[in-house]
Amino acid sequence: MRADVPLPHAYRLLNHGPVTLVTSAAAGLRNVMAASWAMPLDFDPPKVAVVIDRNTFTRQLVEAAGEFALNIPGRTMADASYRVGSRSGRELDKFAAHGLQTFDAVKIGAPLLGGCLAWLECRVLDEPAVQGKYDLFLAEVVSAQADDQVFKDGRWLARLDREPTIHHVAGGHFFATGEPFAVE
Amino acid sequence: MRADVPLPHAYRLLNHGPVTLVTSAAAGLRNVMAASWAMPLDFDPPKVAVVIDRNTFTRQLVEAAGEFALNIPGRTMADASYRVGSRSGRELDKFAAHGLQTFDAVKIGAPLLGGCLAWLECRVLDEPAVQGKYDLFLAEVVSAQADDQVFKDGRWLARLDREPTIHHVAGGHFFATGEPFAVE
Repeated sequence: MRADVPLPHAYRLLNHGPVTLVTSAAAGLRNVMAASWAMPLDFDPPKVAVVIDRNTFTRQLVEAAGEFALNIPGRTMADASYRVGSRSGRELDKFAAHGLQTFDAVKIGAPLLGGCLAWLECRVLDEPAVQGKYDLFLAEVVSAQADDQVFKDGRWLARLDREPTIHHVAGGHFFATGEPFAVE
Repeated sequence: MRADVPLPHAYRLLNHGPVTLVTSAAAGLRNVMAASWAMPLDFDPPKVAVVIDRNTFTRQLVEAAGEFALNIPGRTMADASYRVGSRSGRELDKFAAHGLQTFDAVKIGAPLLGGCLAWLECRVLDEPAVQGKYDLFLAEVVSAQADDQVFKDGRWLARLDREPTIHHVAGGHFFATGEPFAVE
C-alpha cells in the first residue's frame, strides 16, 4: 500500500543512492527518463539535486512546468528502467511503449509511476546558473510517498530484499541493494 | 593493488551511490568526514557534486585548500565511516582516534585513506553562490584510483560481494551493495 512519508523523512528514500526515474509533464505532453545522478540536498524542508541533460525531452518538460517527480523503481522494473534511459520521449510515448502505468501526483502535474517503491514530488528551485552550466537541477520535495511493504516509520525495511531497489554502474550493469546492517 | 582509473571512467566509482569519506587538508591540518550526499555531475572531464555542511571542520579546510578527496570505503570500514561522521575534527584527530592510515594523493594535498576501495581527487569549481546557499560543492575529478580486486577495466567486479561498498540510509543503518546483474 502507498503511504505518505513525512517530509522530514523524505531524504531517506534517496540517501542510499538508488536509481530514480524522472517523470515530467507540460502542455499535454509527458515523459519518463532514468537518472542515477540524483541525491538529497537538505533534510527539512527536503531538497534534492538531479542532473537532467540539456538534450533530453525531459529537460524541456521540466523547464516548462518547473516540476518533476523522482520515482524509485525496484528490481522488477530494472529492464524498464534501462530501456526508458535509452530512448528519447521525442521518438515515442515511453509509458505506452513499456506498459508503464501511472497515477496522479498529490501536488504536481507530473504523473507518478505505478509499480515503483517510492515517489518524491519536486518543485524546481530557481537556480538558472547551475542549470545552464551543469545541467544541475535543485528542487524542493513537496510531497513524498512509499510502498509500506518496503519503507515504514522512516525506514527501509529489511524485507526490502524481496524487491530491492537498484543501483546503476554503467551500460546496463546494476547492483541490487543488498544486506542491511547497523552500526552503533 | 591500487591502480589508476582513466578519468572518463571515474564517474563509475560513484554512480551506484556508495557512502564516501571526504578527506581534506590545509595549513598543516587535516580531517575526514562521511558524506552520502555525493554524486557524479559529468563524464569527461569528470565532475562531482557533494554537500559539505557549513558547520563542519571539513568545510573550513576545503574552502581554504580548494581541494578534497572522495574515498570509497568497503563493508569492513563501515564502523569507522559512521564514527567519523559523528564527531568533529575540531575535537580530535579522527585519523589517530580511529586508527585510519593515509597515503599521499597524486595531484592534491589532501591525504587518501588506506583500506578504502577507490579514491577520487577533486578540485573545487568556483561556484560560491550554490556553496553559500546550499552547502553544495561542485568539483572536477583530477585523478582517480581503485583497488583492482574490486574495480578493473572500468567495472566494479562481481566479487565485490566479498567486500561490498556500503550505502547509508540514516542513523547508522546501512545497506551493503548487493547482487550484480545486467540488463540488455
